[in-house]
Amino acid sequence: MPAPIEFFFDFSSPYSYLAATRIEALAARYQRTVAFKPTLLGAVFKVSRGAPLTELYEGKARYSLHDFERSARFADVPYQHPNPFPVATVGAARAVLWLQARHPAQASPFIQRTFRAYFADGRNVGEPAVVAQIAGEMGVDAAALAAGTQEPAIKEQLKSLVDEAIARGVFGAPFMFVDGEPFWGNDRLPQVERWLERGPF
Amino acid sequence: MPAPIEFFFDFSSPYSYLAATRIEALAARYQRTVAFKPTLLGAVFKVSRGAPLTELYEGKARYSLHDFERSARFADVPYQHPNPFPVATVGAARAVLWLQARHPAQASPFIQRTFRAYFADGRNVGEPAVVAQIAGEMGVDAAALAAGTQEPAIKEQLKSLVDEAIARGVFGAPFMFVDGEPFWGNDRLPQVERWLERGPF
Repeated sequence: MPAPIEFFFDFSSPYSYLAATRIEALAARYQRTVAFKPTLLGAVFKVSRGAPLTELYEGKARYSLHDFERSARFADVPYQHPNPFPVATVGAARAVLWLQARHPAQASPFIQRTFRAYFADGRNVGEPAVVAQIAGEMGVDAAALAAGTQEPAIKEQLKSLVDEAIARGVFGAPFMFVDGEPFWGNDRLPQVERWLERGPF
Repeated sequence: MPAPIEFFFDFSSPYSYLAATRIEALAARYQRTVAFKPTLLGAVFKVSRGAPLTELYEGKARYSLHDFERSARFADVPYQHPNPFPVATVGAARAVLWLQARHPAQASPFIQRTFRAYFADGRNVGEPAVVAQIAGEMGVDAAALAAGTQEPAIKEQLKSLVDEAIARGVFGAPFMFVDGEPFWGNDRLPQVERWLERGPF
Protein backbone atom coordinates (compact mmCIF):
# COMPACT_ATOMS: atom_id res chain seq x y z
CA MET A 1 0.00 0.00 0.00
CA PRO A 2 1.59 3.30 -1.03
CA ALA A 3 1.93 6.04 1.59
CA PRO A 4 -1.01 8.37 2.27
CA ILE A 5 -0.97 11.90 0.89
CA GLU A 6 -0.16 14.20 3.81
CA PHE A 7 -2.44 17.22 3.64
CA PHE A 8 -1.51 20.09 5.96
CA PHE A 9 -4.28 22.67 6.18
CA ASP A 10 -5.81 25.45 8.22
CA PHE A 11 -9.58 25.92 8.40
CA SER A 12 -9.08 29.65 7.74
CA SER A 13 -7.35 29.02 4.40
CA PRO A 14 -9.58 29.44 1.32
CA TYR A 15 -7.28 27.46 -0.94
CA SER A 16 -7.13 24.69 1.67
CA TYR A 17 -10.92 24.54 1.45
CA LEU A 18 -10.84 24.30 -2.35
CA ALA A 19 -8.14 21.62 -2.33
CA ALA A 20 -9.86 19.65 0.45
CA THR A 21 -12.96 19.24 -1.72
CA ARG A 22 -10.89 17.34 -4.31
CA ILE A 23 -7.97 15.67 -2.58
CA GLU A 24 -9.77 12.55 -1.38
CA ALA A 25 -11.23 11.65 -4.76
CA LEU A 26 -7.87 12.37 -6.37
CA ALA A 27 -6.08 10.13 -3.89
CA ALA A 28 -8.63 7.34 -4.31
CA ARG A 29 -8.17 7.30 -8.09
CA TYR A 30 -4.59 6.23 -7.41
CA GLN A 31 -5.25 3.86 -4.49
CA ARG A 32 -4.06 6.36 -1.94
CA THR A 33 -5.58 7.72 1.22
CA VAL A 34 -5.27 11.18 2.71
CA ALA A 35 -3.68 11.90 6.09
CA PHE A 36 -5.28 15.18 7.12
CA LYS A 37 -2.93 17.20 9.29
CA PRO A 38 -4.41 20.36 10.79
CA THR A 39 -1.93 23.15 11.32
CA LEU A 40 -2.13 26.75 12.51
CA LEU A 41 -1.07 29.30 9.93
CA GLY A 42 -0.67 31.97 12.59
CA ALA A 43 2.18 30.00 14.15
CA VAL A 44 3.58 28.98 10.77
CA PHE A 45 3.59 32.59 9.52
CA LYS A 46 5.50 33.75 12.59
CA VAL A 47 8.41 31.60 11.48
CA SER A 48 8.08 32.06 7.73
CA ARG A 49 7.25 35.79 7.91
CA GLY A 50 3.97 35.19 6.08
CA ALA A 51 0.61 36.86 6.46
CA PRO A 52 -2.99 36.23 5.43
CA LEU A 53 -3.40 37.21 1.78
CA THR A 54 -6.05 39.72 2.76
CA GLU A 55 -3.62 41.55 5.03
CA LEU A 56 -1.01 42.22 2.37
CA TYR A 57 -0.60 45.19 0.03
CA GLU A 58 -4.09 46.46 -0.72
CA GLY A 59 -3.98 45.63 -4.43
CA LYS A 60 -2.89 42.08 -3.69
CA ALA A 61 -5.52 41.70 -0.97
CA ARG A 62 -8.24 42.88 -3.35
CA TYR A 63 -7.05 40.54 -6.08
CA SER A 64 -6.93 37.66 -3.59
CA LEU A 65 -10.53 38.13 -2.53
CA HIS A 66 -11.57 38.13 -6.17
CA ASP A 67 -9.42 35.09 -6.86
CA PHE A 68 -10.87 33.08 -3.95
CA GLU A 69 -14.34 33.53 -5.39
CA ARG A 70 -13.40 33.02 -9.02
CA SER A 71 -11.29 29.95 -8.19
CA ALA A 72 -14.25 28.51 -6.30
CA ARG A 73 -16.52 29.06 -9.30
CA PHE A 74 -13.85 27.53 -11.52
CA ALA A 75 -13.84 24.47 -9.25
CA ASP A 76 -17.65 24.50 -9.02
CA VAL A 77 -17.53 24.81 -5.24
CA PRO A 78 -19.81 27.20 -3.28
CA TYR A 79 -18.00 30.16 -1.74
CA GLN A 80 -19.08 33.15 0.27
CA HIS A 81 -16.09 34.99 1.68
CA PRO A 82 -16.52 34.77 5.46
CA ASN A 83 -16.65 37.58 7.93
CA PRO A 84 -14.78 37.53 10.28
CA PHE A 85 -11.75 36.36 8.31
CA PRO A 86 -9.45 34.82 9.31
CA VAL A 87 -10.56 33.21 12.57
CA ALA A 88 -8.66 31.26 15.24
CA THR A 89 -8.90 27.64 14.20
CA VAL A 90 -7.23 25.97 17.16
CA GLY A 91 -10.53 24.54 18.47
CA ALA A 92 -11.56 23.11 15.11
CA ALA A 93 -8.05 21.71 14.60
CA ARG A 94 -8.15 19.95 17.97
CA ALA A 95 -11.59 18.58 17.14
CA VAL A 96 -10.08 16.93 14.06
CA LEU A 97 -7.39 15.26 16.16
CA TRP A 98 -9.90 14.08 18.73
CA LEU A 99 -12.11 12.60 16.01
CA GLN A 100 -9.14 10.95 14.30
CA ALA A 101 -8.38 9.23 17.63
CA ARG A 102 -11.91 8.38 18.79
CA HIS A 103 -14.12 8.29 15.72
CA PRO A 104 -11.72 8.01 12.78
CA ALA A 105 -14.45 7.47 10.21
CA GLN A 106 -15.98 10.82 11.15
CA ALA A 107 -12.81 12.88 10.87
CA SER A 108 -12.81 13.48 7.14
CA PRO A 109 -16.56 14.25 6.91
CA PHE A 110 -16.10 16.68 9.81
CA ILE A 111 -13.27 18.43 7.95
CA GLN A 112 -15.40 18.81 4.83
CA ARG A 113 -18.41 20.06 6.79
CA THR A 114 -16.35 22.52 8.80
CA PHE A 115 -14.75 24.00 5.70
CA ARG A 116 -18.18 24.26 4.08
CA ALA A 117 -19.71 25.80 7.19
CA TYR A 118 -17.10 28.55 7.20
CA PHE A 119 -16.61 29.26 3.50
CA ALA A 120 -20.11 28.69 2.18
CA ASP A 121 -22.60 28.90 5.04
CA GLY A 122 -21.37 31.90 7.00
CA ARG A 123 -20.82 30.02 10.26
CA ASN A 124 -17.98 31.18 12.49
CA VAL A 125 -15.92 28.05 13.01
CA GLY A 126 -13.60 30.04 15.23
CA GLU A 127 -16.23 29.61 17.97
CA PRO A 128 -15.97 26.36 19.93
CA ALA A 129 -19.76 26.16 20.18
CA VAL A 130 -20.08 26.14 16.39
CA VAL A 131 -17.43 23.43 16.10
CA ALA A 132 -19.29 21.26 18.63
CA GLN A 133 -22.56 21.95 16.81
CA ILE A 134 -21.15 20.79 13.47
CA ALA A 135 -19.98 17.57 15.11
CA GLY A 136 -23.41 17.19 16.72
CA GLU A 137 -25.11 17.49 13.33
CA MET A 138 -23.09 14.46 12.25
CA GLY A 139 -24.25 12.40 15.18
CA VAL A 140 -21.09 12.88 17.22
CA ASP A 141 -21.56 13.58 20.95
CA ALA A 142 -21.02 17.35 20.94
CA ALA A 143 -20.27 17.58 24.66
CA ALA A 144 -17.71 14.79 24.44
CA LEU A 145 -16.04 16.50 21.50
CA ALA A 146 -15.98 19.85 23.32
CA ALA A 147 -14.36 18.17 26.30
CA GLY A 148 -11.97 16.32 24.00
CA THR A 149 -10.61 19.55 22.61
CA GLN A 150 -9.50 20.44 26.15
CA GLU A 151 -7.58 17.22 26.76
CA PRO A 152 -3.88 17.91 27.37
CA ALA A 153 -2.87 15.09 25.02
CA ILE A 154 -4.89 16.60 22.17
CA LYS A 155 -3.46 20.06 22.83
CA GLU A 156 0.02 18.61 22.86
CA GLN A 157 -0.58 16.69 19.66
CA LEU A 158 -1.62 19.83 17.81
CA LYS A 159 1.47 21.66 19.04
CA SER A 160 3.60 18.78 17.81
CA LEU A 161 1.89 18.84 14.43
CA VAL A 162 2.53 22.57 14.05
CA ASP A 163 6.17 22.02 15.01
CA GLU A 164 6.37 19.17 12.53
CA ALA A 165 4.93 21.35 9.79
CA ILE A 166 7.44 24.11 10.43
CA ALA A 167 10.33 21.65 10.67
CA ARG A 168 9.35 20.14 7.32
CA GLY A 169 9.30 23.51 5.58
CA VAL A 170 5.57 24.20 5.52
CA PHE A 171 5.06 27.96 5.04
CA GLY A 172 1.48 28.13 3.78
CA ALA A 173 -1.61 26.01 3.19
CA PRO A 174 -2.63 23.71 1.77
CA PHE A 175 0.74 22.03 1.85
CA MET A 176 0.91 18.45 0.67
CA PHE A 177 3.58 15.78 0.76
CA VAL A 178 3.40 12.84 -1.60
CA ASP A 179 6.11 10.26 -0.94
CA GLY A 180 7.94 13.10 0.80
CA GLU A 181 7.70 15.46 -2.20
CA PRO A 182 6.34 18.90 -1.19
CA PHE A 183 3.51 20.59 -3.08
CA TRP A 184 2.21 23.98 -1.96
CA GLY A 185 -1.21 25.24 -2.86
CA ASN A 186 -4.45 24.23 -4.51
CA ASP A 187 -2.76 25.12 -7.81
CA ARG A 188 -0.40 22.18 -7.43
CA LEU A 189 -3.11 19.51 -7.61
CA PRO A 190 -2.36 18.89 -11.30
CA GLN A 191 1.29 18.20 -10.40
CA VAL A 192 0.19 16.00 -7.50
CA GLU A 193 -1.90 14.03 -9.96
CA ARG A 194 1.01 13.67 -12.36
CA TRP A 195 3.14 12.34 -9.47
CA LEU A 196 0.46 9.88 -8.41
CA GLU A 197 0.01 8.68 -11.97
CA ARG A 198 3.61 8.38 -13.13
CA GLY A 199 5.81 8.84 -10.09
CA PRO A 200 8.63 11.34 -9.64
CA PHE A 201 9.21 13.89 -12.40
CA MET B 1 -11.86 41.19 -33.31
CA PRO B 2 -11.76 40.61 -29.55
CA ALA B 3 -9.21 42.50 -27.48
CA PRO B 4 -5.67 41.12 -27.16
CA ILE B 5 -4.57 39.39 -23.98
CA GLU B 6 -2.37 41.83 -22.08
CA PHE B 7 0.64 39.97 -20.73
CA PHE B 8 2.73 41.88 -18.19
CA PHE B 9 6.04 40.18 -17.54
CA ASP B 10 9.60 40.60 -16.32
CA PHE B 11 12.48 38.71 -17.94
CA SER B 12 13.72 37.76 -14.46
CA SER B 13 10.47 35.98 -13.57
CA PRO B 14 10.57 32.18 -13.92
CA TYR B 15 6.80 31.84 -14.01
CA SER B 16 6.64 34.57 -16.67
CA TYR B 17 8.98 32.44 -18.76
CA LEU B 18 6.83 29.36 -18.32
CA ALA B 19 3.62 31.24 -19.15
CA ALA B 20 5.21 33.01 -22.12
CA THR B 21 5.94 29.67 -23.76
CA ARG B 22 2.20 28.91 -23.86
CA ILE B 23 0.27 32.18 -23.98
CA GLU B 24 0.48 32.79 -27.74
CA ALA B 25 -0.79 29.36 -28.74
CA LEU B 26 -3.51 29.63 -26.12
CA ALA B 27 -4.58 33.04 -27.42
CA ALA B 28 -4.53 31.84 -31.02
CA ARG B 29 -6.86 28.95 -30.23
CA TYR B 30 -9.48 31.55 -29.34
CA GLN B 31 -8.72 34.05 -32.12
CA ARG B 32 -6.86 36.37 -29.80
CA THR B 33 -3.47 37.98 -29.95
CA VAL B 34 -1.09 38.78 -27.12
CA ALA B 35 -0.02 42.31 -26.21
CA PHE B 36 3.33 41.76 -24.47
CA LYS B 37 3.95 44.44 -21.87
CA PRO B 38 7.37 44.37 -20.24
CA THR B 39 7.42 45.62 -16.68
CA LEU B 40 10.06 45.87 -13.95
CA LEU B 41 9.33 43.81 -10.88
CA GLY B 42 11.84 45.79 -8.82
CA ALA B 43 9.71 48.92 -9.21
CA VAL B 44 6.46 46.99 -8.80
CA PHE B 45 7.68 45.31 -5.60
CA LYS B 46 8.62 48.68 -4.10
CA VAL B 47 4.96 49.63 -4.19
CA SER B 48 3.45 46.24 -3.38
CA ARG B 49 6.06 45.31 -0.75
CA GLY B 50 6.96 42.20 -2.70
CA ALA B 51 10.29 40.46 -3.12
CA PRO B 52 11.83 37.84 -5.39
CA LEU B 53 10.71 34.39 -4.25
CA THR B 54 14.30 33.40 -3.70
CA GLU B 55 14.84 36.25 -1.24
CA LEU B 56 12.02 35.25 1.11
CA TYR B 57 12.06 32.99 4.17
CA GLU B 58 14.67 30.32 3.51
CA GLY B 59 12.19 27.43 3.44
CA LYS B 60 10.02 29.24 0.93
CA ALA B 61 13.01 30.22 -1.19
CA ARG B 62 14.21 26.62 -1.26
CA TYR B 63 10.74 25.37 -2.18
CA SER B 64 10.46 28.00 -4.91
CA LEU B 65 13.70 26.93 -6.57
CA HIS B 66 12.48 23.36 -6.56
CA ASP B 67 9.09 24.43 -7.87
CA PHE B 68 10.54 26.47 -10.75
CA GLU B 69 12.36 23.38 -11.98
CA ARG B 70 9.55 20.93 -11.36
CA SER B 71 6.98 23.24 -12.95
CA ALA B 72 9.21 23.55 -16.01
CA ARG B 73 9.45 19.75 -16.27
CA PHE B 74 5.68 19.55 -15.81
CA ALA B 75 5.28 21.99 -18.72
CA ASP B 76 7.98 20.21 -20.73
CA VAL B 77 10.05 23.38 -20.99
CA PRO B 78 13.85 23.42 -20.51
CA TYR B 79 14.98 25.11 -17.31
CA GLN B 80 18.33 25.71 -15.69
CA HIS B 81 18.02 28.12 -12.79
CA PRO B 82 20.18 31.09 -13.78
CA ASN B 83 23.04 32.60 -11.89
CA PRO B 84 23.00 35.53 -11.29
CA PHE B 85 19.31 35.67 -10.36
CA PRO B 86 17.49 37.97 -10.59
CA VAL B 87 19.12 40.40 -13.02
CA ALA B 88 18.24 43.95 -14.05
CA THR B 89 15.97 43.60 -17.04
CA VAL B 90 15.53 47.23 -18.01
CA GLY B 91 17.68 46.88 -21.14
CA ALA B 92 15.87 43.78 -22.37
CA ALA B 93 12.52 45.42 -21.62
CA ARG B 94 13.44 48.49 -23.65
CA ALA B 95 14.60 46.26 -26.48
CA VAL B 96 11.11 44.75 -26.59
CA LEU B 97 9.53 48.20 -26.88
CA TRP B 98 11.96 49.26 -29.60
CA LEU B 99 11.25 46.09 -31.58
CA GLN B 100 7.50 46.50 -31.13
CA ALA B 101 7.85 49.98 -32.67
CA ARG B 102 10.38 49.27 -35.43
CA HIS B 103 10.20 45.56 -36.21
CA PRO B 104 6.90 44.40 -34.72
CA ALA B 105 7.09 40.91 -36.23
CA GLN B 106 10.36 40.34 -34.37
CA ALA B 107 9.15 41.39 -30.94
CA SER B 108 7.50 38.16 -29.86
CA PRO B 109 10.30 35.89 -31.16
CA PHE B 110 12.78 38.11 -29.34
CA ILE B 111 10.81 37.72 -26.10
CA GLN B 112 10.80 33.94 -26.44
CA ARG B 113 14.50 33.81 -27.27
CA THR B 114 15.45 36.12 -24.44
CA PHE B 115 13.53 34.09 -21.88
CA ARG B 116 15.10 30.91 -23.22
CA ALA B 117 18.58 32.46 -23.22
CA TYR B 118 18.25 33.34 -19.55
CA PHE B 119 16.36 30.38 -18.13
CA ALA B 120 17.72 27.55 -20.25
CA ASP B 121 21.00 28.60 -21.83
CA GLY B 122 22.76 30.37 -18.97
CA ARG B 123 23.13 33.72 -20.75
CA ASN B 124 23.01 36.84 -18.61
CA VAL B 125 20.26 38.90 -20.23
CA GLY B 126 20.91 41.61 -17.67
CA GLU B 127 23.89 42.60 -19.84
CA PRO B 128 23.06 44.95 -22.72
CA ALA B 129 25.64 43.22 -24.91
CA VAL B 130 23.85 39.89 -24.52
CA VAL B 131 20.50 41.50 -25.36
CA ALA B 132 21.95 43.01 -28.53
CA GLN B 133 23.56 39.70 -29.40
CA ILE B 134 20.25 37.84 -29.13
CA ALA B 135 18.65 40.37 -31.45
CA GLY B 136 21.59 40.02 -33.83
CA GLU B 137 21.11 36.25 -33.94
CA MET B 138 17.60 36.93 -35.24
CA GLY B 139 18.87 39.14 -38.04
CA VAL B 140 18.07 42.40 -36.28
CA ASP B 141 20.71 45.14 -36.51
CA ALA B 142 22.29 44.75 -33.06
CA ALA B 143 23.86 48.21 -33.05
CA ALA B 144 20.56 49.85 -33.99
CA LEU B 145 18.81 47.96 -31.23
CA ALA B 146 21.46 48.92 -28.67
CA ALA B 147 21.06 52.55 -29.70
CA GLY B 148 17.29 52.20 -29.63
CA THR B 149 17.31 51.16 -25.99
CA GLN B 150 18.91 54.53 -25.22
CA GLU B 151 16.26 56.62 -26.98
CA PRO B 152 14.46 58.93 -24.56
CA ALA B 153 11.07 58.00 -26.01
CA ILE B 154 11.71 54.30 -25.37
CA LYS B 155 12.92 54.96 -21.84
CA GLU B 156 9.84 57.06 -21.22
CA GLN B 157 7.56 54.41 -22.65
CA LEU B 158 8.92 51.78 -20.28
CA LYS B 159 8.44 54.09 -17.32
CA SER B 160 4.86 54.68 -18.42
CA LEU B 161 4.26 50.94 -18.74
CA VAL B 162 5.57 50.32 -15.24
CA ASP B 163 3.34 53.10 -13.92
CA GLU B 164 0.41 51.63 -15.81
CA ALA B 165 1.07 48.21 -14.32
CA ILE B 166 1.16 49.56 -10.79
CA ALA B 167 -1.94 51.70 -11.36
CA ARG B 168 -3.83 48.66 -12.63
CA GLY B 169 -2.96 46.58 -9.58
CA VAL B 170 -0.13 44.48 -10.95
CA PHE B 171 1.93 43.16 -8.01
CA GLY B 172 3.73 40.20 -9.56
CA ALA B 173 4.40 38.49 -12.88
CA PRO B 174 3.17 37.18 -15.12
CA PHE B 175 0.05 39.29 -14.75
CA MET B 176 -2.54 39.02 -17.48
CA PHE B 177 -5.67 40.95 -18.32
CA VAL B 178 -8.32 39.39 -20.52
CA ASP B 179 -11.13 41.82 -21.33
CA GLY B 180 -9.96 43.73 -18.26
CA GLU B 181 -10.16 40.68 -15.96
CA PRO B 182 -6.94 40.22 -13.95
CA PHE B 183 -5.15 36.86 -13.75
CA TRP B 184 -1.93 36.51 -11.78
CA GLY B 185 0.57 33.76 -12.39
CA ASN B 186 1.35 30.89 -14.67
CA ASP B 187 -1.06 28.85 -12.54
CA ARG B 188 -3.98 30.93 -13.81
CA LEU B 189 -3.64 29.82 -17.44
CA PRO B 190 -6.42 27.24 -17.01
CA GLN B 191 -8.75 30.01 -15.80
CA VAL B 192 -7.63 32.25 -18.66
CA GLU B 193 -8.55 29.45 -21.03
CA ARG B 194 -11.98 29.03 -19.43
CA TRP B 195 -12.55 32.77 -19.86
CA LEU B 196 -11.49 32.71 -23.49
CA GLU B 197 -13.66 29.71 -24.19
CA ARG B 198 -16.86 30.67 -22.38
CA GLY B 199 -16.49 34.29 -21.29
CA PRO B 200 -16.87 35.68 -17.78
CA PHE B 201 -17.36 33.21 -14.92
